[in-house]
Amino acid sequence: MSKRLDDLRAKLVKEGLDGLIVTRPDNQLYLSGFPGGEYLDATMLVSAEHAWISTDSRYYEEVKQRAKEFTLFEAGYDRNKVMGEFATTAKPKVMGFEMTHLTVATLKDWSKAARKAGFKLKPMAGLVEGQRMIKEPEEIAAIKRAVDLTDRAFAHLCAVIKVGDTEKQAAWIIEKYMRENGADKVAFNLIVAAGPNSALPHAMPGNRKIQRGEPIVVDIGCQIDHYNSDMTRTILLGQPDEQFKKVYDTVLRAQRAAAKKIKAGVKGKRADSFARAVIDKAGFGDQFGHGLGHGVGLAVHEGPRASKLSKDVYQSNMTLTLEPGIYIPGWGGVRIEDLVVIRENDVEILSQASKEPIIKI
Amino acid sequence: MSKRLDDLRAKLVKEGLDGLIVTRPDNQLYLSGFPGGEYLDATMLVSAEHAWISTDSRYYEEVKQRAKEFTLFEAGYDRNKVMGEFATTAKPKVMGFEMTHLTVATLKDWSKAARKAGFKLKPMAGLVEGQRMIKEPEEIAAIKRAVDLTDRAFAHLCAVIKVGDTEKQAAWIIEKYMRENGADKVAFNLIVAAGPNSALPHAMPGNRKIQRGEPIVVDIGCQIDHYNSDMTRTILLGQPDEQFKKVYDTVLRAQRAAAKKIKAGVKGKRADSFARAVIDKAGFGDQFGHGLGHGVGLAVHEGPRASKLSKDVYQSNMTLTLEPGIYIPGWGGVRIEDLVVIRENDVEILSQASKEPIIKI
Repeated sequence: MSKRLDDLRAKLVKEGLDGLIVTRPDNQLYLSGFPGGEYLDATMLVSAEHAWISTDSRYYEEVKQRAKEFTLFEAGYDRNKVMGEFATTAKPKVMGFEMTHLTVATLKDWSKAARKAGFKLKPMAGLVEGQRMIKEPEEIAAIKRAVDLTDRAFAHLCAVIKVGDTEKQAAWIIEKYMRENGADKVAFNLIVAAGPNSALPHAMPGNRKIQRGEPIVVDIGCQIDHYNSDMTRTILLGQPDEQFKKVYDTVLRAQRAAAKKIKAGVKGKRADSFARAVIDKAGFGDQFGHGLGHGVGLAVHEGPRASKLSKDVYQSNMTLTLEPGIYIPGWGGVRIEDLVVIRENDVEILSQASKEPIIKI
Repeated sequence: MSKRLDDLRAKLVKEGLDGLIVTRPDNQLYLSGFPGGEYLDATMLVSAEHAWISTDSRYYEEVKQRAKEFTLFEAGYDRNKVMGEFATTAKPKVMGFEMTHLTVATLKDWSKAARKAGFKLKPMAGLVEGQRMIKEPEEIAAIKRAVDLTDRAFAHLCAVIKVGDTEKQAAWIIEKYMRENGADKVAFNLIVAAGPNSALPHAMPGNRKIQRGEPIVVDIGCQIDHYNSDMTRTILLGQPDEQFKKVYDTVLRAQRAAAKKIKAGVKGKRADSFARAVIDKAGFGDQFGHGLGHGVGLAVHEGPRASKLSKDVYQSNMTLTLEPGIYIPGWGGVRIEDLVVIRENDVEILSQASKEPIIKI
């Protein structure tokens, strides 16, 4: 934690800031070790010399126990009081705030408080998120634990899934396995989408019964010690038709091409093109509507990105999902997603779940 | 849905607005019937004559199926394009936006787009949330389904809980029961807090083993068809000490006093005082640090409020939790929470779970 604060402080100097007000909960967790609750209402203020967490009485005890590098400011229900007190102690002239998280209403409140306290507020984006992109060894170890459990949950599903199960039932089989084998929670609403539903990249599991011979997209992840996993497989019970074989083969080749060519130094736009070129060439370019992938860590979706619009340049120890897909309205879709860690000369593929799509029945 | 839009439009006229841009996902669901996904990125624009949803290709199909009162605007990845197109069609001069939800970064983007499109943006708060406070019969019916399942899940816990179970295990017993008996999800991270942990109003369930004779706060709820429940009971395995009896009796009397006196016309501050007076009189005033309660609906925490700071005046068909608590650091806490519907002359208590705290073992 101490190093994370030091790195942030070095960034603040570069940006010409005397401090940063951190409101995004996963950034607060990253800097302090304090996860807060679901409804945590805390404000974190970091300057060259000081690091404060301002919150209400629900969280005083936990902050004291967990956030050892931070001074607790007991704000009670007066959220703005901390601005004046911090100004008296740290004497900042310009404090940044997280513009992609802070609401317009809160900024309005704070602007008054800051004016009174004698400092300026400056909108910033991505400062802590930038730090978080490069994972420490302990973070990668935590992500691996979540990935391993996800692999095992998928294997369990393949062992027990049968024709006539609903999408919801299949999703619950996976979630129950994860929760009973060490996951704190699922990383997102698990997706099991069968038949035509598999053509919707973000379908919610419903009461559709799984039929023989139709594609089933299974997009799953869990959270252990606040770190997430994210993995997709597409399976089919029984015998596939020619369409499935062709689509599956194309997506798998696209996924492997990306895994083979990505390494440190590659740009996010180019990474996306490695997979996209294979899908374009097979004639399915218009059916791959989303980007290739995203980083995974304390958030399921974080930097870097792999997409047509990405401006990221990859560095060692970034994580990335490689998840090309082809979606054909009315028929269905295929998506295959591995989570990888980017290394100097290649990627380390974390996801080890089987890519054999045909479940014999 | 049509009536909800009409009511919103009547409000817009009163506020001197030509339209409202709705970004808060539960407000979008309320107005359109479209729940979106977990990562839904949609913008909704409502004027006197038009109602649009702008989103990307992941959601086109679902919007068409579910949001019948709305016109789908296919935005692709250009989120701001809709501003100009909507302006051409609806010709607004002033559009409100939801200032307690919109981020500073998005407002910055939109301000440019709105200037170009020839209309002004005005910060607003609570317009749709105000409508949502008064529940329709179908909404109350949906909430009752979630409340009933929560009651049953609690009864199940009482039947199977035993000394030595961890807080986490007990929370999972409840969650599994809810999920396997009709809940789409839990309404929030369920709380089971035993012994000294029960003194933390928002404790996360941990690996502490439940011991004989200590208070166990169980704060649970589930979601069915997007509507939530919220209920707390405090139980104890074995024989209570005198402290528990006194604290429990005080909280229960406070809770009943509030349930007896609240009705339409009562103010949120006064509602809070009904329970607080009982706790103050028993000498535990300083140990009841939070407000009496909040509304429950599409969100677990919504208006109206019952607290020292509340300015709400209750109306028929609002929901409200009545959840006084006493928290004694080092010893533990007791909280008892029912969900009620406010009626003209009284409240209807929805929660039917037993308030007998002693589980014989």
